[in-house]
Amino acid sequence: MNLRAYQSAEERRIALEKELKKQFSHVSNFSFDESIVSTKNCENLIGATHIPLGVAGPLKVESQKSKVKNYFIPLATTEGALVASISRGCKVVTESGGVSVFIERSGMTRGPVFATGSLKKGKEVTLWIKKNITRLEKIAQTTSSHIMLTDIMIRPVGEYLFVRFSFDTQDAMGMNMVTIATEKLVAEISNATKIDCISVAGNFDIDKKPAWLNVINNRGFVASADIVITKELVKKNLKTTSEKIFDVWLAKCMIGSAMSGSLGFNAHFANIIAALFLATGQDPAHVVEGSLGITTIKVLKNGDLYVSIYLPALLVGTVGGGTHLATQQESLALLGVSTSEALAEVVAGTVLAGELSLLASLAEGTLAKAHKKLGRGIK
Amino acid sequence: MNLRAYQSAEERRIALEKELKKQFSHVSNFSFDESIVSTKNCENLIGATHIPLGVAGPLKVESQKSKVKNYFIPLATTEGALVASISRGCKVVTESGGVSVFIERSGMTRGPVFATGSLKKGKEVTLWIKKNITRLEKIAQTTSSHIMLTDIMIRPVGEYLFVRFSFDTQDAMGMNMVTIATEKLVAEISNATKIDCISVAGNFDIDKKPAWLNVINNRGFVASADIVITKELVKKNLKTTSEKIFDVWLAKCMIGSAMSGSLGFNAHFANIIAALFLATGQDPAHVVEGSLGITTIKVLKNGDLYVSIYLPALLVGTVGGGTHLATQQESLALLGVSTSEALAEVVAGTVLAGELSLLASLAEGTLAKAHKKLGRGIK
Amino acid sequence: MNLRAYQSAEERRIALEKELKKQFSHVSNFSFDESIVSTKNCENLIGATHIPLGVAGPLKVESQKSKVKNYFIPLATTEGALVASISRGCKVVTESGGVSVFIERSGMTRGPVFATGSLKKGKEVTLWIKKNITRLEKIAQTTSSHIMLTDIMIRPVGEYLFVRFSFDTQDAMGMNMVTIATEKLVAEISNATKIDCISVAGNFDIDKKPAWLNVINNRGFVASADIVITKELVKKNLKTTSEKIFDVWLAKCMIGSAMSGSLGFNAHFANIIAALFLATGQDPAHVVEGSLGITTIKVLKNGDLYVSIYLPALLVGTVGGGTHLATQQESLALLGVSTSEALAEVVAGTVLAGELSLLASLAEGTLAKAHKKLGRGIK
Amino acid sequence: MNLRAYQSAEERRIALEKELKKQFSHVSNFSFDESIVSTKNCENLIGATHIPLGVAGPLKVESQKSKVKNYFIPLATTEGALVASISRGCKVVTESGGVSVFIERSGMTRGPVFATGSLKKGKEVTLWIKKNITRLEKIAQTTSSHIMLTDIMIRPVGEYLFVRFSFDTQDAMGMNMVTIATEKLVAEISNATKIDCISVAGNFDIDKKPAWLNVINNRGFVASADIVITKELVKKNLKTTSEKIFDVWLAKCMIGSAMSGSLGFNAHFANIIAALFLATGQDPAHVVEGSLGITTIKVLKNGDLYVSIYLPALLVGTVGGGTHLATQQESLALLGVSTSEALAEVVAGTVLAGELSLLASLAEGTLAKAHKKLGRGIK
Repeated sequence: MNLRAYQSAEERRIALEKELKKQFSHVSNFSFDESIVSTKNCENLIGATHIPLGVAGPLKVESQKSKVKNYFIPLATTEGALVASISRGCKVVTESGGVSVFIERSGMTRGPVFATGSLKKGKEVTLWIKKNITRLEKIAQTTSSHIMLTDIMIRPVGEYLFVRFSFDTQDAMGMNMVTIATEKLVAEISNATKIDCISVAGNFDIDKKPAWLNVINNRGFVASADIVITKELVKKNLKTTSEKIFDVWLAKCMIGSAMSGSLGFNAHFANIIAALFLATGQDPAHVVEGSLGITTIKVLKNGDLYVSIYLPALLVGTVGGGTHLATQQESLALLGVSTSEALAEVVAGTVLAGELSLLASLAEGTLAKAHKKLGRGIK
Repeated sequence: MNLRAYQSAEERRIALEKELKKQFSHVSNFSFDESIVSTKNCENLIGATHIPLGVAGPLKVESQKSKVKNYFIPLATTEGALVASISRGCKVVTESGGVSVFIERSGMTRGPVFATGSLKKGKEVTLWIKKNITRLEKIAQTTSSHIMLTDIMIRPVGEYLFVRFSFDTQDAMGMNMVTIATEKLVAEISNATKIDCISVAGNFDIDKKPAWLNVINNRGFVASADIVITKELVKKNLKTTSEKIFDVWLAKCMIGSAMSGSLGFNAHFANIIAALFLATGQDPAHVVEGSLGITTIKVLKNGDLYVSIYLPALLVGTVGGGTHLATQQESLALLGVSTSEALAEVVAGTVLAGELSLLASLAEGTLAKAHKKLGRGIK
Repeated sequence: MNLRAYQSAEERRIALEKELKKQFSHVSNFSFDESIVSTKNCENLIGATHIPLGVAGPLKVESQKSKVKNYFIPLATTEGALVASISRGCKVVTESGGVSVFIERSGMTRGPVFATGSLKKGKEVTLWIKKNITRLEKIAQTTSSHIMLTDIMIRPVGEYLFVRFSFDTQDAMGMNMVTIATEKLVAEISNATKIDCISVAGNFDIDKKPAWLNVINNRGFVASADIVITKELVKKNLKTTSEKIFDVWLAKCMIGSAMSGSLGFNAHFANIIAALFLATGQDPAHVVEGSLGITTIKVLKNGDLYVSIYLPALLVGTVGGGTHLATQQESLALLGVSTSEALAEVVAGTVLAGELSLLASLAEGTLAKAHKKLGRGIK
Repeated sequence: MNLRAYQSAEERRIALEKELKKQFSHVSNFSFDESIVSTKNCENLIGATHIPLGVAGPLKVESQKSKVKNYFIPLATTEGALVASISRGCKVVTESGGVSVFIERSGMTRGPVFATGSLKKGKEVTLWIKKNITRLEKIAQTTSSHIMLTDIMIRPVGEYLFVRFSFDTQDAMGMNMVTIATEKLVAEISNATKIDCISVAGNFDIDKKPAWLNVINNRGFVASADIVITKELVKKNLKTTSEKIFDVWLAKCMIGSAMSGSLGFNAHFANIIAALFLATGQDPAHVVEGSLGITTIKVLKNGDLYVSIYLPALLVGTVGGGTHLATQQESLALLGVSTSEALAEVVAGTVLAGELSLLASLAEGTLAKAHKKLGRGIK
């Protein structure tokens, strides 16, 4: 059976039903535009997977430019208790006056690897690149009016030359744009210096693998958020104390992560990132990068609670990828964000709300209880 | 506006529409059972996110027990070219006689952290646990007929005592089951030894954070796959040579990953895992663990290509979580697997097909071309 | 000039002096037995390097078996202020009643890698090893009356099979013993299962490279130490407060190490380990393993200070290696330890003293001052 | 007994002899200047530890500036077979025309951590630093005529602000110089922005702990070396083949290191670095940084062998630290290097020779044999 032989999702689905003698009627139900999706997002289309969509919030967020706004947060998830827990975090954050968020564009990266034959030749190529940055910037810009080459990191290792290009890709997450641009840059370098490119993507970007390079030198957006919660609100809304939350954080997010050889020093960034990414049409494989980062907790002298989160490699966009799909567009509309910066800000704020709520649950020993009540638990 | 005040997804959605003066009609379209989902999977439900579902295959897989079977692979994704690329991998794998897969159950883990006050007390508690393993096994079993405590790893660090419990959770991924069981175990240990548990989840499981603990001592399933592709099929189907694929692999997956401080020595495990996980109702945050692992390539003396993949921490289930949802059930039916082992086998085989195809594309320099043609590319 | 042509260190030294027209008279001054050293420790011998030897202490140590003893600590170093700083730590530790130490023998490891050709064959070999553990234990014992095979960890990755053998090597650090034993084990496995060993040391031991495998599953000794220092002694001896030491520790050893992608969550284990290792004839390349590990600090409710250190991979011996050299023997005599366990205990206690003292210096901002006064500082 | 009460090493030694009723006569034998050493390098001095000193070479090295020179390599070690093995490597390297070395000064770093109180304040301080770089450069220069501030990396995490200063410290390794300079910079920043410095050394340098920050962004010197060895010389001198050396390298240094969660993708950098560091008066705790890095091997089309090594964080100096001691001065004279660059070049070349020789031994299965014959082996 040749799946590519069929014209439409329906024909293909029906053919599979016949072949396997089964019914796949539920997946046939979808609201995106098949003609676009089948050419741009998903080959051999047969329909859609439905992920439950819940809403948390409102979440009050104060942006770097000191604009304060309330957001409803769309979360696509099947993990019982997750939306409820994030909602609880949103409530205490909002009652505390809102979370402050800080976004910096580090740039989408692509990291080709060249075969130079020797360190000596590698040095020559390195020098050539450093001398021709302006030329390379211009070449990058010819590939799209929405792209700009912003940084180049070069590392020679024996006969291998690794180059990490960083780009500003405006409101797109930009992975495809930077691949196309990098192919042009690679062709120029290869041509001028007479060396071969082994791979346009040499795991020096590094994409969709958890890696210290992205923690240390960042990728996409660097997003941070912080807030002070009064001890009264900690008690009222989170049913615990600042000290207990601190103890859980130190034992779990710091010592526990150190003992595990973890790149994430947090409670559950990945849960929050995954739910927001799915709802808004981001690439779910970038949950890997989203799981990196650090939560910090401090008990202030008056007993109030300081909480912060740090996301070193947040990859989001409001155009491209799955963002144009009908249900994903509605989630973006629900959020009311149109730029990738604004989306990054909301992600940072929501991650803080989710971290705070889980740490508080752990402090009170209510994790399993919440899951038993709300969860998908197999009895 | 209090989102929890509404009875149904529709009421809540309409209330949001009024509040925000926007339309969210597409998300209202879903095929899962609201009454179950709203209590077990997603609070504050307003509808569903639709992820395009494509199919790759057939993929011929030879299981450890030497059963050979062909699978159609459901993939929920918005990344253009991914299904096409995996399909190409499936084709060459199947024409080569199928991929051999090997699955080992390492066990779902939960890792609480206790406060012992001192190393001396920590030693006492360690000894108590070692002496009472049978008692702890029995307690674990009281929490579910589908759970079995299989291993305990203990590490004292100052006044912290980290314990990593491993469980067999049959066909469930089992995160909630093991949390519930661990709470009972923790209560028993605390009670008997008079120490407090700081957190039932002490990042010593470690869950949804990329970490060496899971690479080295595994989590969930350890899944491997390998195959030999003749040089003729490499040329015919993949349009390149064994040697070029090897060169890309060595430069990218080995040297590039080493240069990046990566925990993944592979090309794009996360892409394949994410698409399969979304289609079949797995937890998308476990893409983090799925991104770990190693691909190996070898050119045999006769020029044929040996390919293997190694997944040290694969977390899958066929019951629980999002697996019961209507569209996800159809994907599981399409696959025709009912046990978590069988699902793990298919994941391993598909990951190998996807790795092989991408490495071949990179070897031929066709990555950007494929994405330009099929991708979500912003022009 | 052929350095191997000369019979004695003196002849070789003089030949080099002639060749290079320089004088190397100082290195000719040494107290070890040339005939032994030139055959067992150092080829092409020309003399000795002199490392200044200082003494810290007395340090009161309470062993796991509750024996309390005072130790003078020999430290070979050229880093000004190091001995003084450790001495200060010893003083406050001893005045506090002594440091409690806990030692566990994890075992010296060697990790060969085999080429199995396929996962299927790898599974067969794995099964063979698991069935033949008793046979392998006996073979190991034939290589020395001081060695015992205690554990085997096996990991198949594609056609590679990694095996990590752990041994009890009594009072020797044991690297050579386990290499010899492993060669025999490897020969037996290769012979019985018809597979080749690619390398008897496959970086799966892993030796003298910083790696999570040794942190997580340990190597050599696991050594811990802890103590409570009253707030009065903190003030009197360390000129700071418990709270300030805690703040430095949290910012530096936890958050700073997390930000750096470090395997060491400590202040300066390596300094202390290096000085003790050099003095007592240990292998200085094992400072790499000694740099791993975690320091913890806690301020108790009454303001007293709890300090602990955790060394996951401490490699020491009192026989073999450089331990038999005359000056090294004197350092071991100064310590008064004859077993590797006893040496490990002293190392653990000294590391705690050194950590505490540096953290206190940082808390008071006196680091540079100490180095300016005592250091090797270039003016 | 108060060790600080004694005036000279001899008095202190004799007092210890009396106290412990033992003889420490061998350590009394040393050739360095006690008056300098006791104030600059080692407090509570009682004498010296003698480390056997062997010589390997000559090693032909071609520097970046294409100067070719032969070096005799001083190695202080107690590991039998190490000097012999490195010598073998030197021989094949020299017969092959010499190793090409490439050195780049990345800079000695110091990484303080500040408490800003909030992300908002952290942003302000970041901006202040960026605006005042020239002022900070001038302040650094006031602390020494041999220091220059060359780079600043800033990372805010919650209320913590980590700053990594890089300095050119000429021929000194420079740790003390940069600590003194950093204290001045920290005082200026604290004063101008009204924030406290928690620790002048915040593990963001990061010093003497193995960490990805130093691998990825380098520290001290970045040193590389490469060479081509003809297949004839591989056979004649190394008794094996290019292919076998490649196989060992791939299985051990790449796959094995990946499986172990290693930061070092090499065979035994630490051994070579430790022996050279001890001989030449470097800081032995910096063996930790020296153990980082990658060896690459390639079999060329004609069967010849390409070898390279990459040291991302090599910390060496020819002034300061232990370099002024009499025996260490002789080793530097033996080498004939006077600048830190020249020393770094020799280290790089020697590391390549040592790697090549060990990989060849492993390929031929002669590791244990060599150690049995030459080693410290306990029989």
